Amino acid sequence: MTDLKAHADLLRELHHGELLVLPNAWDEASAELVVETGFPVVATSSAAVADVLGYQDGEAAPWQEMFAAAARIARAVPVPVTVDAEAGYGLAPRELVDRLVEAGVAGCNLEDTDHRAGRLRDAEAHADWLAEVRAAADASGVPLVVNARIDVFLPPAGVPEADRVAEAVRRGRGYREAGADCVYPIGAPGDALGRLVADVGGPVNGNTNPALDLDGLAALGVARVSFGPRFYRSGFAGMRDALEAIQERGVRDVS
Amino acid sequence: MTDLKAHADLLRELHHGELLVLPNAWDEASAELVVETGFPVVATSSAAVADVLGYQDGEAAPWQEMFAAAARIARAVPVPVTVDAEAGYGLAPRELVDRLVEAGVAGCNLEDTDHRAGRLRDAEAHADWLAEVRAAADASGVPLVVNARIDVFLPPAGVPEADRVAEAVRRGRGYREAGADCVYPIGAPGDALGRLVADVGGPVNGNTNPALDLDGLAALGVARVSFGPRFYRSGFAGMRDALEAIQERGVRDVS
Repeated sequence: MTDLKAHADLLRELHHGELLVLPNAWDEASAELVVETGFPVVATSSAAVADVLGYQDGEAAPWQEMFAAAARIARAVPVPVTVDAEAGYGLAPRELVDRLVEAGVAGCNLEDTDHRAGRLRDAEAHADWLAEVRAAADASGVPLVVNARIDVFLPPAGVPEADRVAEAVRRGRGYREAGADCVYPIGAPGDALGRLVADVGGPVNGNTNPALDLDGLAALGVARVSFGPRFYRSGFAGMRDALEAIQERGVRDVS
Repeated sequence: MTDLKAHADLLRELHHGELLVLPNAWDEASAELVVETGFPVVATSSAAVADVLGYQDGEAAPWQEMFAAAARIARAVPVPVTVDAEAGYGLAPRELVDRLVEAGVAGCNLEDTDHRAGRLRDAEAHADWLAEVRAAADASGVPLVVNARIDVFLPPAGVPEADRVAEAVRRGRGYREAGADCVYPIGAPGDALGRLVADVGGPVNGNTNPALDLDGLAALGVARVSFGPRFYRSGFAGMRDALEAIQERGVRDVS
């Protein structure tokens, strides 16, 4: 518990220095590789973890299995682990925090998509819920680092393109006031990221994209960057190519 | 159970036609990829599965965790699954069979290395044990396909190079007589494989190597080929390269 508090404190501090680069992991081996190659924190990707477990992303996997996977990762590495906890799986704030602490993680992503309804959560209601998570975490003795994802840039959210930046700033401010340590406008383009860094007043999580590399994100003042399931998927792409090559080539009949 | 028997029957039959190519999987997603790319069977690699679970190969992982992983894979795919069950984890034949059937697999690899003692098992004692596994499987109603690994070509086995082929043939005949469906002289070079195919009198599992591709194995009369952790490791190699590139390049200080 004391160790986990130290992990949360360290993870929080790492949002206020050099760009925190989080090459997301999905199991013990990928988490160990992240640590072995010198990264100070392991972040999980829910899409990759769900895929490994045989589920779709977007809370299709039972939270028990997702948290069990997070716990296995946390046991495997000595560094802080921050888990992509999707939208909290419908758990009440106190229970969500208890399960995260039980899994041995120091932080989490929480997104403002309502997966059951298939749309964005109301911003104020979501901020209230984040405030309850914040209070429960602080009361638990492990001040979990909360990275509040803002999903307005995702097409399924249905926010008109012209309104996205303003809505993201509005949500980002609300989530920060609710006690989020960082906000994560997933899929935001560079100019939007710059606006969010300037107008939200706290750490912002970015993604690289074809037009924006790590230096570009650092120059925008982004505090942390994550890759989602990218490394997971690229490993699979190589295997798929190899298997398809075997099939295309065929092998001689030995019967 | 009826389905599992049908899977075992199908898997056995596939040892007597075209070269059975088994690109080993390690979790649900890789198993699904194997099926998606058209392979009729999923085989697991114990080295890869153990690595995913945070353990070394060679029975360092608890059998409960290894079999739970096998069960998740078997649930995820509609085709027969054959699990690399190492040396059987010290389980008695009946219990080993019960756990395999419970996991929903149709076959297994069983190797003749004694991991606790760090040496090859006595060939006759191992054949007796395989016969008990055979009997237990047949009695269970699921005639598991047993691929009996012969570890004499592995350097830790300590068999002098000049004696390896003869010892492998001796073991292969004994294991076949004990009821093994296939023998697997892991790491055997091409000439040794040819001898084993000729002298053992039953299906032989080969590996590709720099001098031997799938066509070459098929020409030698090999019945099945597996890749062990190769695809698992090559995905990781790509991720390691990417992470090392990030570290080498560094990112600008944003503090």
